[in-house]
Amino acid sequence: MRKLAILTSGGDSPGMNAAVRAAVRTAAVEDIEIIAFEDGYRGLLEDRTQRLGPRSVSDILDRGGTLIGSGRSEEFTTPEGLAKAAGALKEHQVDGLIVIGGDGSMRGAHELVQRGIACVGAPATIDNDLGGTDYCIGFDTALNTIIYDVSKIRDTASAMDRVFVVEVMGRESGMLALHAGLACGADAVVIPEIEFDYQEMFDRIRDASGRHKMHYVILVAEGACSVHEVAKRTTEETAEEVRVSVLGYIQRGGSPSALDRTLACRFGARAVELLAEGENDVMVGVLGEDLVTVPIAEAAGAKHDIDRSMYELIGRLAR
Amino acid sequence: MRKLAILTSGGDSPGMNAAVRAAVRTAAVEDIEIIAFEDGYRGLLEDRTQRLGPRSVSDILDRGGTLIGSGRSEEFTTPEGLAKAAGALKEHQVDGLIVIGGDGSMRGAHELVQRGIACVGAPATIDNDLGGTDYCIGFDTALNTIIYDVSKIRDTASAMDRVFVVEVMGRESGMLALHAGLACGADAVVIPEIEFDYQEMFDRIRDASGRHKMHYVILVAEGACSVHEVAKRTTEETAEEVRVSVLGYIQRGGSPSALDRTLACRFGARAVELLAEGENDVMVGVLGEDLVTVPIAEAAGAKHDIDRSMYELIGRLAR
Amino acid sequence: MRKLAILTSGGDSPGMNAAVRAAVRTAAVEDIEIIAFEDGYRGLLEDRTQRLGPRSVSDILDRGGTLIGSGRSEEFTTPEGLAKAAGALKEHQVDGLIVIGGDGSMRGAHELVQRGIACVGAPATIDNDLGGTDYCIGFDTALNTIIYDVSKIRDTASAMDRVFVVEVMGRESGMLALHAGLACGADAVVIPEIEFDYQEMFDRIRDASGRHKMHYVILVAEGACSVHEVAKRTTEETAEEVRVSVLGYIQRGGSPSALDRTLACRFGARAVELLAEGENDVMVGVLGEDLVTVPIAEAAGAKHDIDRSMYELIGRLAR
Amino acid sequence: MRKLAILTSGGDSPGMNAAVRAAVRTAAVEDIEIIAFEDGYRGLLEDRTQRLGPRSVSDILDRGGTLIGSGRSEEFTTPEGLAKAAGALKEHQVDGLIVIGGDGSMRGAHELVQRGIACVGAPATIDNDLGGTDYCIGFDTALNTIIYDVSKIRDTASAMDRVFVVEVMGRESGMLALHAGLACGADAVVIPEIEFDYQEMFDRIRDASGRHKMHYVILVAEGACSVHEVAKRTTEETAEEVRVSVLGYIQRGGSPSALDRTLACRFGARAVELLAEGENDVMVGVLGEDLVTVPIAEAAGAKHDIDRSMYELIGRLAR
Repeated sequence: MRKLAILTSGGDSPGMNAAVRAAVRTAAVEDIEIIAFEDGYRGLLEDRTQRLGPRSVSDILDRGGTLIGSGRSEEFTTPEGLAKAAGALKEHQVDGLIVIGGDGSMRGAHELVQRGIACVGAPATIDNDLGGTDYCIGFDTALNTIIYDVSKIRDTASAMDRVFVVEVMGRESGMLALHAGLACGADAVVIPEIEFDYQEMFDRIRDASGRHKMHYVILVAEGACSVHEVAKRTTEETAEEVRVSVLGYIQRGGSPSALDRTLACRFGARAVELLAEGENDVMVGVLGEDLVTVPIAEAAGAKHDIDRSMYELIGRLAR
Repeated sequence: MRKLAILTSGGDSPGMNAAVRAAVRTAAVEDIEIIAFEDGYRGLLEDRTQRLGPRSVSDILDRGGTLIGSGRSEEFTTPEGLAKAAGALKEHQVDGLIVIGGDGSMRGAHELVQRGIACVGAPATIDNDLGGTDYCIGFDTALNTIIYDVSKIRDTASAMDRVFVVEVMGRESGMLALHAGLACGADAVVIPEIEFDYQEMFDRIRDASGRHKMHYVILVAEGACSVHEVAKRTTEETAEEVRVSVLGYIQRGGSPSALDRTLACRFGARAVELLAEGENDVMVGVLGEDLVTVPIAEAAGAKHDIDRSMYELIGRLAR
Repeated sequence: MRKLAILTSGGDSPGMNAAVRAAVRTAAVEDIEIIAFEDGYRGLLEDRTQRLGPRSVSDILDRGGTLIGSGRSEEFTTPEGLAKAAGALKEHQVDGLIVIGGDGSMRGAHELVQRGIACVGAPATIDNDLGGTDYCIGFDTALNTIIYDVSKIRDTASAMDRVFVVEVMGRESGMLALHAGLACGADAVVIPEIEFDYQEMFDRIRDASGRHKMHYVILVAEGACSVHEVAKRTTEETAEEVRVSVLGYIQRGGSPSALDRTLACRFGARAVELLAEGENDVMVGVLGEDLVTVPIAEAAGAKHDIDRSMYELIGRLAR
Repeated sequence: MRKLAILTSGGDSPGMNAAVRAAVRTAAVEDIEIIAFEDGYRGLLEDRTQRLGPRSVSDILDRGGTLIGSGRSEEFTTPEGLAKAAGALKEHQVDGLIVIGGDGSMRGAHELVQRGIACVGAPATIDNDLGGTDYCIGFDTALNTIIYDVSKIRDTASAMDRVFVVEVMGRESGMLALHAGLACGADAVVIPEIEFDYQEMFDRIRDASGRHKMHYVILVAEGACSVHEVAKRTTEETAEEVRVSVLGYIQRGGSPSALDRTLACRFGARAVELLAEGENDVMVGVLGEDLVTVPIAEAAGAKHDIDRSMYELIGRLAR
């Protein structure tokens, strides 16, 4: 193998740079050239590339975001766009493409495979909603960002005796809200996968409000319902002061955590090895301590199951 | 002097606990008893108190929020409320009251002085908008929270080539936005004190958008204008993708910074000393490295001036 | 089941408090009383206990260290000590004991089982060197502490063109050094499990020193060799300025990471459930996403294997 | 003015990059060219330069260390070295030199002034030991690093009932130990400027050791005495378990705090303005909220006085 392409696609997640660095340096050891397409599939369609060498990825391991850019592209999802993208890759005479991103990015890679491009995926999305892997790059960093921010909100909730409704990311997945909720000691968690018992929550708040030093923190996955709606109903039902906080984009960035970095290093390096070994149409993943591969289509199709016992545990551990 | 009261009032700010601890332990050295009124002036009206000793303030130095609670009270601002509050303090036979809080809290303390209660104030508000002191407790911690969060947002802005409009706290004061804007390298800052030149910003964004790797971060003090309005106009004028982030309550909490802790320790201890020395109706402050006192009414009345040269510097340092 | 005991033993690790909280609140739901022995097995021998209820573990989830104290005890490892300990537990009429700690603590629990005490273990050690579980409580937090501190050292290494030899914890295990080394982009890692090639390192440093902006960071597990010896040899062989940094006790403390918190919550709760289900002489662990149990003796006996491919990856990714 | 030179010298401190960025971009607005000498006065003697433009200082505001390198040079302090350095600057036809560093760096700048080079200094040293300014760049970041690390050590001190002796930087100045000691609630602080009362400390420890949950943290400035000596004596006198922790180089690095960033931005920009206004042989400083200038020789000669009242406050606030 002589030449590979790499791109990061979809919402950025912390650790993408570490994965790119690992791929580039692993390729360098094997004398494989690497070019990056900028801004994800968009840059592929517009044929915007940079050559990456071992030196050009210095000092990016600990950086959030993605220095080669990411993005979304409507055109890419059309038959014409896909044909154009495959054409561009063939033009550059690359022996394979490494796609770092979430489920949309994996579906894109699978389409390119159908058009004759060897593709290996590395899962990177703070939503952690791909199948076939315990962890996606970025999830652990986002979790840590959330819990440290919620602990700041809790300071005020506690000082002012208030209820806080906090929105965290997760359009279709409650993974972030679930893990963060357990980790930060949330009083309740609202996620798309499980029906929420509002009456029980209102009862608990009313009950707590009798005691002194009432405070209550509810985490809501953005895809589950509107935080403003939750806040409104809670105010009406409990007569407590309720405040809303939308964590928003701060959940995406930041220097990656140790776990995301080791994962990203291993995923990025393994992706190069897999292509060099002739593998195609697979995504690298981690199960326990072991690196594994899973067919891309399977990874993108299967949702990561929610652990109901963790959901119930949150309820049991709340006071 | 034999007995003092203490309370924290208004929005909580990081370092309030450190100030309470310093006051309690300083009082203990002088064999002065201290009681805390819970939840600010509200607890004063409801006569909710705790006795604080040197041990009960262990392990609170590094905690955000305020463990004796804070709050706002409409009733307290009425003549009847003030009379009732003064009565409660006399009932407890305290020789003085330490009020830790922002401008509203200082005004309250000044009113209590008119009703025969010896009061000393310690400035604590992340808005940093009191006169007679360079710093209020909490400002520095909030600034650090903002800049680390904006750097996370910048990761995404940079990865996705986007404009971000970020709202920071400050209803009547642009201090937080101004200092944070300089510290995080914001491209523009919108504050209530200075008229903002939108056309210049639109020109800059249009100009940047020609170059590759455009990203642009605008900090807006909540009292200056609506971030959603800014985002809407910017989209219309520049055709760029614009995103909004409201940092909200995470700016209030968190373990206090070194500066806020040293300040809070010094303010809390000095407040006790001042009351013991027979001072009254003053707020402790810091100018340069020196502790000073300023009449409470003056501190609450005077706004902290915005440094125009810092505002201009932000513009010059933006690319 | 009516009554359980709990203790934290050995070196403290971040997340121990979260595990205690989870155990106490899980027990409370089942109406099981919980007492804590203070300072590990030492407090068991000295019969020092506290009763813990759902409220007494409020606000400890995010605290490093262990509020019920930990410690080591020589006496406990003697037959007399063990008999005395078992006697104390029987005196308190507890139906079981939850032991949170590392391999020494697990061996102690296994001994108590031989003396008629039902024991369940929860692995907590930053060394992460127990068998039967991917993670022990505290490992992930320690890793994050190390990588953020090494990145500070790297700032100076880079500014001053220096070689840094950094000692991290791990008397018998290179797990921390290995994972941290990959995560922070160390140039070399010295661990007890794998023989280190000094000549190759000296060659690399000499080679780098020809280029401008030389800097080189070596992580050494404390059990592998002396950092001062490594520094001395490196200076002699390469004529570079070499500095030593011993991270020391800062690796043990700090607010637990998200991963350590979710793990600790799950382990603590599961330990109670296991005892209630009649399980005995097992340690709870996590493999991938699943909670598992492993015989205590097996967990304490088996070392956690080092992943050689990660070791080699560090070498390949270093410039 | 058409051309300026800039360098960072001595031990690196967080915020140096922000100062360089501010100088470069301020110069760019005035159409002044800037070159950087690499690695401080050493690079000046070896005539190693880089041209800096507004774009080359992108993304360095939040980086610790100094990207243009720093260093110490014996040769520079000799008459021959100084003559050579002045010659190099004249060769490059620069209209002035900006020196960012500590007292040694300022003395060097003053010597260059005697040799016909216009120099303006910007104080940057975590020791904060220059005269004529409240703050030097880097001090506030180092303080924050210290207090968060000491709080980790305190977790273990508290869990294990131990005495910890922690060494912080400061060869000739106790500023860091003093401010950090107050901010982290140290039980005692040993600094070069004030004689330490060991007997009083031993008495306190013996006294505390009677009570349960003894822990004691002593901060020692490296220039005051040996931490190992303090530990040895404390063990002998109190029979407690004493541990030593040397924070070392982690105190130098890290992303600069908000205060250090605003300071560095203002200092860097002002240095350019001062040279453009024809000022020479002065250092920029900050007193309260105002930027000031002080003759370089005066700044380097005068020590920053220790605030005795802060020292005494630490003693009073310790339990």
